[in-house]
Amino acid sequence: MKVVLQTSWNTAAAWRAELLRQAPDLEVRLWPEIGDPAEIDVVLCWQPPPDLFAGMRNLRLIQVLGAGVDGLLRKVPVLPPVPIARLVDPVMAQRMAEYCLYATLRFHRRFDLYERQLAQARWERHQHLDPPEIGVGVMGLGAIGSTVVRVLRQFGYNVAAWTRSPHPDAEVPVFVGGEGLPAFLARTRILICVLPLTPETASILDRRVFEQMPRGSYLVNAARGEHLVVPHLLSALETGRLEGAMLDVFAHEPLPKSSPLWRHPKIFVTPHTAGITNPRTATAVIVEQLRRLERGEPLLHLVDPARGY
Amino acid sequence: MKVVLQTSWNTAAAWRAELLRQAPDLEVRLWPEIGDPAEIDVVLCWQPPPDLFAGMRNLRLIQVLGAGVDGLLRKVPVLPPVPIARLVDPVMAQRMAEYCLYATLRFHRRFDLYERQLAQARWERHQHLDPPEIGVGVMGLGAIGSTVVRVLRQFGYNVAAWTRSPHPDAEVPVFVGGEGLPAFLARTRILICVLPLTPETASILDRRVFEQMPRGSYLVNAARGEHLVVPHLLSALETGRLEGAMLDVFAHEPLPKSSPLWRHPKIFVTPHTAGITNPRTATAVIVEQLRRLERGEPLLHLVDPARGY
Repeated sequence: MKVVLQTSWNTAAAWRAELLRQAPDLEVRLWPEIGDPAEIDVVLCWQPPPDLFAGMRNLRLIQVLGAGVDGLLRKVPVLPPVPIARLVDPVMAQRMAEYCLYATLRFHRRFDLYERQLAQARWERHQHLDPPEIGVGVMGLGAIGSTVVRVLRQFGYNVAAWTRSPHPDAEVPVFVGGEGLPAFLARTRILICVLPLTPETASILDRRVFEQMPRGSYLVNAARGEHLVVPHLLSALETGRLEGAMLDVFAHEPLPKSSPLWRHPKIFVTPHTAGITNPRTATAVIVEQLRRLERGEPLLHLVDPARGY
Repeated sequence: MKVVLQTSWNTAAAWRAELLRQAPDLEVRLWPEIGDPAEIDVVLCWQPPPDLFAGMRNLRLIQVLGAGVDGLLRKVPVLPPVPIARLVDPVMAQRMAEYCLYATLRFHRRFDLYERQLAQARWERHQHLDPPEIGVGVMGLGAIGSTVVRVLRQFGYNVAAWTRSPHPDAEVPVFVGGEGLPAFLARTRILICVLPLTPETASILDRRVFEQMPRGSYLVNAARGEHLVVPHLLSALETGRLEGAMLDVFAHEPLPKSSPLWRHPKIFVTPHTAGITNPRTATAVIVEQLRRLERGEPLLHLVDPARGY
């Protein structure tokens, strides 16, 4: 099986090494050195250039190397008519949940304030609530969102979820769609976004959302930068509607050095590290997918391009 | 029942209000306005002055307002011959565990580095391990230590404990005494101290301990400042033996503004906030203790002054 590997990160060589370790029979070509495009069976990609698929007339699968396919759908206007899969790695979901729990503890226990007090050598203690008294709202209830919900709930937080469609079996209250949003926001002190990026969810974290949350709330965005309207966040921090934010994703990555987000005292910027991929476990998921393709078995985690996830 | 309430923190009035809310029949006198000391049945105290107990010849119980009695035992050379109890509040143990989990996530996920990168607007991602690959060592396995162990283990970390006496029923490997210390330290990447402060444990976090840990390890001290030899910590950070520390307790509190700990880039100082008391739940524990005293029932959480906890 001939596979093209492309990633906008600096990790292509590491992916190839791990793929060949786990599946030595693969032929892995690093983009742009792909040889004859007509020979390619599978593309593994992350934020591909628009012409990546040119001439691949025998392509059978596009496997994205991350949880979201927005980078693919937006960068490549016309996609080959083959199945598209996203990467669903339980380890990545767990890592996302670690990030979200850390962010939640940070705000709940006021470690954001204690960090700020360091520079002034200021010894001041702040009272805090306990987890059952803190409404945490998770936007998105897919593979990642449900793991985030489970971990936060296990830790005792008063968790609810907001999503597009009802989840009757969810272990927490689920608020659905535009109709459910006001009640969801009203109970949320710490808002965590792990939504897929689609035309419906772009810019969802805006002034209207912040204004429906209790005064002094917090925002955690671990999904995509395009979910957030940055000027609205800055205003909400200015007025005290929001008291802090932890942001892992940005519309332009790397976040430019000139961005006001870097040095804002109430914002903690992390460099897209919430769900950093574990090459070993992620490769195992991909190799399983390739074996299924070889054997003609149903593929995993296929995406509906019209829906966007 | 006549109760004297004393605390070196700024919280005496809040304690009294909550005591009277939960037990309106109590007579609570705020130190130093204690009236006739011969009338006093119970002292509730935190880091008392040495003469607090003068003339209390009918005293029946000393109830300390925190988890450790070291402040009492060290500040008052001659104690009245009455039972001494420490405060064991499950909510406080849970809060300590939250602190320790936050510290563990901070180092495991390199949020310490990401905080430092903010000032330079530096976008750099760091690979990390997953919890089962990370040895976390908890020193102390009492009410707090066992809660810390449970929470970290539930989260998947490779946890072990070090303590003075064997705990055959513990759910993690337990290393015992001086003999068990080297093997415990050799497997520990993140060392968490929640020991009681006694003559045996004072200055236990010293050069010899750090040198037995893997290079690039981390220290979390949520016990007492006197457990740590600060110059040895600074040397270990200098040589790279330790890569970071999160410290909640100090030999002199508030930590003086002149302390080098405040501005050390690899140290996160928090103002004794790991197990901040929840007045409501802690008062419920104390009221239960006073009811037991009234009814002549066995008292809770008595301390052996010779052992120190």
